[in-house]
Amino acid sequence: MIEVAVIGIGQVKVDENWDKSLRELAGDAALAALLDSGLQRVDAVYVGNMMSGSANHQQHLGAYIADWIGMRGAEAFRLEAACSSGAASFRTALMAVASGQVQSALTVGVEKMTDSPGDEITAQLATAADADWEAGQGLSFVALNALIMQRYMHEFGWGKEAFAPFAVNAHANACHNPYARFQEPTSIERYMKAAMISEPINLMDASAIGDGAAAAVLVPLELVKSAGRKMVKVAASAAATDTIAIDHRKDPLWLKAAYESGKKAYAQAGVSPSDIDLFELHDAFSIMATLSLEANGFAEKGQGPRLALDGEITPTGKIPVATRGGLKARGHPVGATGMYQIVEVVQQLRGEATGTQVDGACIGMAQNIGGSGSNIITHILQAV
Amino acid sequence: MIEVAVIGIGQVKVDENWDKSLRELAGDAALAALLDSGLQRVDAVYVGNMMSGSANHQQHLGAYIADWIGMRGAEAFRLEAACSSGAASFRTALMAVASGQVQSALTVGVEKMTDSPGDEITAQLATAADADWEAGQGLSFVALNALIMQRYMHEFGWGKEAFAPFAVNAHANACHNPYARFQEPTSIERYMKAAMISEPINLMDASAIGDGAAAAVLVPLELVKSAGRKMVKVAASAAATDTIAIDHRKDPLWLKAAYESGKKAYAQAGVSPSDIDLFELHDAFSIMATLSLEANGFAEKGQGPRLALDGEITPTGKIPVATRGGLKARGHPVGATGMYQIVEVVQQLRGEATGTQVDGACIGMAQNIGGSGSNIITHILQAV
Repeated sequence: MIEVAVIGIGQVKVDENWDKSLRELAGDAALAALLDSGLQRVDAVYVGNMMSGSANHQQHLGAYIADWIGMRGAEAFRLEAACSSGAASFRTALMAVASGQVQSALTVGVEKMTDSPGDEITAQLATAADADWEAGQGLSFVALNALIMQRYMHEFGWGKEAFAPFAVNAHANACHNPYARFQEPTSIERYMKAAMISEPINLMDASAIGDGAAAAVLVPLELVKSAGRKMVKVAASAAATDTIAIDHRKDPLWLKAAYESGKKAYAQAGVSPSDIDLFELHDAFSIMATLSLEANGFAEKGQGPRLALDGEITPTGKIPVATRGGLKARGHPVGATGMYQIVEVVQQLRGEATGTQVDGACIGMAQNIGGSGSNIITHILQAV
Repeated sequence: MIEVAVIGIGQVKVDENWDKSLRELAGDAALAALLDSGLQRVDAVYVGNMMSGSANHQQHLGAYIADWIGMRGAEAFRLEAACSSGAASFRTALMAVASGQVQSALTVGVEKMTDSPGDEITAQLATAADADWEAGQGLSFVALNALIMQRYMHEFGWGKEAFAPFAVNAHANACHNPYARFQEPTSIERYMKAAMISEPINLMDASAIGDGAAAAVLVPLELVKSAGRKMVKVAASAAATDTIAIDHRKDPLWLKAAYESGKKAYAQAGVSPSDIDLFELHDAFSIMATLSLEANGFAEKGQGPRLALDGEITPTGKIPVATRGGLKARGHPVGATGMYQIVEVVQQLRGEATGTQVDGACIGMAQNIGGSGSNIITHILQAV
């Protein structure tokens, strides 16, 4: 297998970008990544996106975006794996370069969600759950996560305040990220007083949707070595699924697909959790951040909140998470999120994470979750 | 690069399958392919699908279908490239196995289109065109192809009857294919009298949508050799794009992306057009069949109809096309079509194309088109 490196990254600010179309958002991130890579042209364009067919009446984003950014002729597809579409596009780009089928690949995650009314977007997000057995019963994603969080609090005896540090850390970090949607701090007090959405999930437990795009350029590692540029190697890439409906799981409090893809990724990279310098986890809801820490070996089962309460998830802690704001404060334009995570890990490994730089960061992990833990894709990147 | 083989194929009949859900259709084809492969389990499931988000209110088909067919845990994504989604999933599976990231991959193309009213489906299909510059102006896909066909007839002086052999050949072949939607012959007379849809395209120039699924299992070639099973090697895989909007092309009568991906595929396989024993082309409209023959080197520009009129596209001709009915008579469940093409080429190379077997078929080509020629993916398979 050909070893693969990331040589360019780009992103746009997550926001209600009403003055930018879907292709402009994707194009701005993609062209920034190309500029950063120093390449003029790539062989392939892989687009991660969940809902443009319904939210923007535009499918076929591969050809659509390749055309827009001046890459006519390049191979181009769209990858969809619900909220893990971004990581799916990155993994596809990795496989394309690693197989030798292409010599360079651009991968861009994009989502434009704020043009549609909120209830329509909620219904479109619910298409990531089981249409017959979950969405058809009226379960939205907040409701699904609320059921999980309620059970978690009951099983392990945590009160609501134990989850506050996830939001506090995310917002504190986002203050230093010009691409984050909410560049403002929050506090335990504000967390405790936030409006309830679906008990026990309140506004500060939940990430906000938004419009955004993030991109990266991948090439064979050897090519970067000879070009003498800054290098970030893809040390591991792994994906796993779980049942699509939560009620089909033996234990709804265990992210089996995170454990499986994490285990494979650790083995590929030849590392263990203690080697990971930072972890861009999928904090769509604070309960998902908790479960991710546990499934990936950073905390014992039921003890995720302990790590957060002890301050170990901040940039100076044992396992920094959401270092540029995470889904909670950077924002969660669903199909783009996985690519934001990759971009942020690369920033850390290059020492470019101004304000929240993790000291001596050398190995970073990104984990993108689709559905209620039903599709989980893990990448480990390494500075070389 | 690891060489890759197809060791299992499966399909369901294209039809208005009102008694089968999306997952049942995909599952039936996938399980048939698995049974044919002799494998119990695969590492990855890649799903080709264009419009389940809008037509079936279900996205996240990777995890959804992996779960349904008992492959929980396996990596799984959806590939979308409009009507070339099926070939995109096959190409992704190829890259995954060729890169060594997975040891076995199942790829299934599926589309369930007949649950929605026809006008809704027409609007959903139009999301493959440019939403701003084509679909937004009221151009449907039939209309786009009608403009191309009209220009072609004007430029090269062909009358309507010159296109009849495409429909006649497709229907004649479909009579022998139990998975085809229209297992009935047609004639030049019926072609000439068919109802007009969008001049000059009539009902016999256009493929019908439908519900369907087709699947294949891919593994490293070495693995099949040692298992002593029937082998079909993936000799070439290539993809290319063109402008998404037709009016941005210098020459709307030249399928540049077919030419580019075909050229790459010929080079990879080390063959030329004269080595191709059969060609499963993308005859969504008879004009697309014509242009495909020309762009891939089987006919001079403007001379596609000549080849058809001379009987050279039938199973005993120089370049048999639509040997199991093609999009026209097998049917065109859009995201599944690319996988039906692969399955049909494998049938030919294994000598299992009862009734329309191409004598001594050894090298077969499948070419799947997304949009109006804006995304074209070419595969060459070879019996070994």
